[in-house]
Amino acid sequence: MADAWSEGDVAALARPGEPSVLLKLRRTPIALGDRGVLDLSRELGRAPGGEVEWLGRRYRLVRPSLADLLGSLARGPQIVTPKDAFHLAYLAGVQPGVRVVEAGSGSGALTVVLATLVGPTGEVTSYDRRPEFLEAARANLERAGVADRVRLVRRDVATEGFDTTGVASVILDLPEPWDVVRAAVGALVEGGYLATYTPTYNQLERAVRAMRDGRLGDVHALELLERPIQVGEGGTRPAFEMLGHTGFLAAGRKVG
Amino acid sequence: MADAWSEGDVAALARPGEPSVLLKLRRTPIALGDRGVLDLSRELGRAPGGEVEWLGRRYRLVRPSLADLLGSLARGPQIVTPKDAFHLAYLAGVQPGVRVVEAGSGSGALTVVLATLVGPTGEVTSYDRRPEFLEAARANLERAGVADRVRLVRRDVATEGFDTTGVASVILDLPEPWDVVRAAVGALVEGGYLATYTPTYNQLERAVRAMRDGRLGDVHALELLERPIQVGEGGTRPAFEMLGHTGFLAAGRKVG
Amino acid sequence: MADAWSEGDVAALARPGEPSVLLKLRRTPIALGDRGVLDLSRELGRAPGGEVEWLGRRYRLVRPSLADLLGSLARGPQIVTPKDAFHLAYLAGVQPGVRVVEAGSGSGALTVVLATLVGPTGEVTSYDRRPEFLEAARANLERAGVADRVRLVRRDVATEGFDTTGVASVILDLPEPWDVVRAAVGALVEGGYLATYTPTYNQLERAVRAMRDGRLGDVHALELLERPIQVGEGGTRPAFEMLGHTGFLAAGRKVG
Amino acid sequence: MADAWSEGDVAALARPGEPSVLLKLRRTPIALGDRGVLDLSRELGRAPGGEVEWLGRRYRLVRPSLADLLGSLARGPQIVTPKDAFHLAYLAGVQPGVRVVEAGSGSGALTVVLATLVGPTGEVTSYDRRPEFLEAARANLERAGVADRVRLVRRDVATEGFDTTGVASVILDLPEPWDVVRAAVGALVEGGYLATYTPTYNQLERAVRAMRDGRLGDVHALELLERPIQVGEGGTRPAFEMLGHTGFLAAGRKVG
Repeated sequence: MADAWSEGDVAALARPGEPSVLLKLRRTPIALGDRGVLDLSRELGRAPGGEVEWLGRRYRLVRPSLADLLGSLARGPQIVTPKDAFHLAYLAGVQPGVRVVEAGSGSGALTVVLATLVGPTGEVTSYDRRPEFLEAARANLERAGVADRVRLVRRDVATEGFDTTGVASVILDLPEPWDVVRAAVGALVEGGYLATYTPTYNQLERAVRAMRDGRLGDVHALELLERPIQVGEGGTRPAFEMLGHTGFLAAGRKVG
Repeated sequence: MADAWSEGDVAALARPGEPSVLLKLRRTPIALGDRGVLDLSRELGRAPGGEVEWLGRRYRLVRPSLADLLGSLARGPQIVTPKDAFHLAYLAGVQPGVRVVEAGSGSGALTVVLATLVGPTGEVTSYDRRPEFLEAARANLERAGVADRVRLVRRDVATEGFDTTGVASVILDLPEPWDVVRAAVGALVEGGYLATYTPTYNQLERAVRAMRDGRLGDVHALELLERPIQVGEGGTRPAFEMLGHTGFLAAGRKVG
Repeated sequence: MADAWSEGDVAALARPGEPSVLLKLRRTPIALGDRGVLDLSRELGRAPGGEVEWLGRRYRLVRPSLADLLGSLARGPQIVTPKDAFHLAYLAGVQPGVRVVEAGSGSGALTVVLATLVGPTGEVTSYDRRPEFLEAARANLERAGVADRVRLVRRDVATEGFDTTGVASVILDLPEPWDVVRAAVGALVEGGYLATYTPTYNQLERAVRAMRDGRLGDVHALELLERPIQVGEGGTRPAFEMLGHTGFLAAGRKVG
Repeated sequence: MADAWSEGDVAALARPGEPSVLLKLRRTPIALGDRGVLDLSRELGRAPGGEVEWLGRRYRLVRPSLADLLGSLARGPQIVTPKDAFHLAYLAGVQPGVRVVEAGSGSGALTVVLATLVGPTGEVTSYDRRPEFLEAARANLERAGVADRVRLVRRDVATEGFDTTGVASVILDLPEPWDVVRAAVGALVEGGYLATYTPTYNQLERAVRAMRDGRLGDVHALELLERPIQVGEGGTRPAFEMLGHTGFLAAGRKVG
């Protein structure tokens, strides 16, 4: 069965040196804001990877990668980096087919990663108490084509708890995760994981202590430093520019 | 539909402070080497998470996480760390449903990660020219319950190339990846990614140059440093023990 | 004026791959514990650098470096590393001819560094409330040949303060440096520096806040990570072994 | 003997939050470029630390620290950082009274550090083949008040070698240090150290190999990463901004 584009598929216009442009394929021309319209109707039924001429340049129309999806989101220091998003997913036991809870939704960057990793048979519930963030997250999830796997729920989990149980993974990307540890443990299956992501040592410390006081074992914490390496004409060296800090990761498992 | 154990499922006996023990459920007692036999037949049909008494201690019988699977493999400095395995998967565009190529198989640790991340609808082809490694990888994949998604192929990819095309991702964990860049690019779909993992700067440099000379764009390199953090009675600090180096990651995309 | 050995000089027996052995030159044989005695009387008056045969091996008799001095101290995790000792000295404005205060003395490793850096015209006052540490520090300072520049004073600086003023530099290597900030500021000249060295974030935070609340400006904090690099036959890479953490450095200046 | 200002002393006008201003004290008003003139004649004979009103603000007139001296130099990525300058000095065995060789002089930042650390009884010989750098270095050394301890020599050490011998320390801050290893070893006393500072792995590798092939023992390499820590209202965390790379340090000792 050959891979072919269908109407409604999310595709990426890709070209080296530029961020990819995400769009949803359809039979009629697609409006691209101030960059005009693009008619991709003839690509429907064709295999991904075809050449597309746009604004005088050649692009490839490809299946979007997670890097394409994340690159198409509004960027900022508050957005989780891929290294952290992926490692949080690892620590929390996220994998295809699994049910995951996230709080808060933020702008939906981590939600997009989780929804991608659980695949079409998994499910993500994402809580936020701020409606404007839920809206931004929904827009990003739809642009990424994974909105159907995500329940966005307006809820202050610190006071109201979760509205689901039996999940394999809970990820807390909140300023005060310690208030939510009890609710998280209640929502987890035996063998499930709680992971937290916090910017300061003070928050990490309180989160880890709450996890240890709760019914979680093997609680541990870490940070990941990403060091870009430059391979240039004159030789190879670490890049001068580097992000000095993103956040601290912690995780524990409900077993006992 | 409630989650329930079936015959043949891979399960983990989990308990805080100990590595999990993986086993395949069946109707008859399971031999666990020098740790005796364990009859788990009554768990079939029950929900995961039940308590199990074994050797005088209480365990939970849970769905294995990737951490359980990786923890059950033989460990050593040559085994890719989770931080690197997950980030390589990210850089290479690995996600549910995707077709991935890996060379070499090594002991199968990265293969287990890739097979887990592509899910039951994806496929991993893993090449190695050394039969003893293919055998070790097969044993690890079977223990992890993901062998059905993996084609293990004995092949020297540097001289013989790949036996598949149209894949989304190629990951090279080889001492001389530059010899395989051309074959990898040939096997990739447009928009697909090649990622490499090499221990020394010299290998990284040659790999990156081969990727730039090949038909790959956006080639970049990095390393991830994992810093464990200790939250103790006396306060919080980075741990004294830390792995100073694992490997360099590089990736590029076939677009053009 | 040619450099020549005099009686009483501290010398190092040096040989690649071995820690140097420090000894004090004299006209009679020198006892070296279970490694016998060594007669170096004929070296007096000669230039440093001569060959010495000892226990069947060839050594060079050289002027000891700070690395020799530090290497001859009892080692342990509690001993400040050279990277931190030197950077603390930099942050605290330690240089030849300067008067420095240190608390506590510990085993005297940092004291040896400070006494070396201030040179014969400088002075170090080192406080500790534990007599056994003062004794250990004195032995190390004498072995290093810099005891004449150091005043070792038994004193609990948190309650009793300092017994000197007008110093250019104060370095606090204490578990609770915040209790000593006021005394330190009182002892400093205008333009002088206070530097602290603490293992945990909690201690660093309290120290920095006390420094800001005191009469100190430009308060800042940092840590130094030392990454060994291996240049081997197969290529160059960071070493696998690395110390994940030593301590946090902070400093501020008395100006205002 | 009380410390007092003399004519010709280098002093720093210091104030929190501003880089210090270096000036040479004299009996007549001092021109400070576009910031007017300042009469400090009444400070002569007084103790350092006095208050000075300048441009409507209060400053302290203090003995300059190395941080003041380095802060007054033209800054740029090519200037060695204090962490590296001090650790190079440690690795090379620089201390009060010692004779040191440096090549090349560059803008004189490292030269200022070395001249400060060897004190008034030590000596630094600094080579550069580019007259414009020697001139810049001389200006910086004079501004720092340590020019009398430094011999600035125009010389291409790769082809002409050194013009001195019997030194304790050689530091090479050159693009191709391997060409100079033989000359450096020839200039060192037994027990002396050669240290190199290079930006890329390729240069480090060649330097280390040349040092091993030369008559140097205990050759090793490392890098120092400086991570600023922010202590703020909301808590403590590593700073987001961090310099990802400065240079690699290597050192070996002439013993054998």
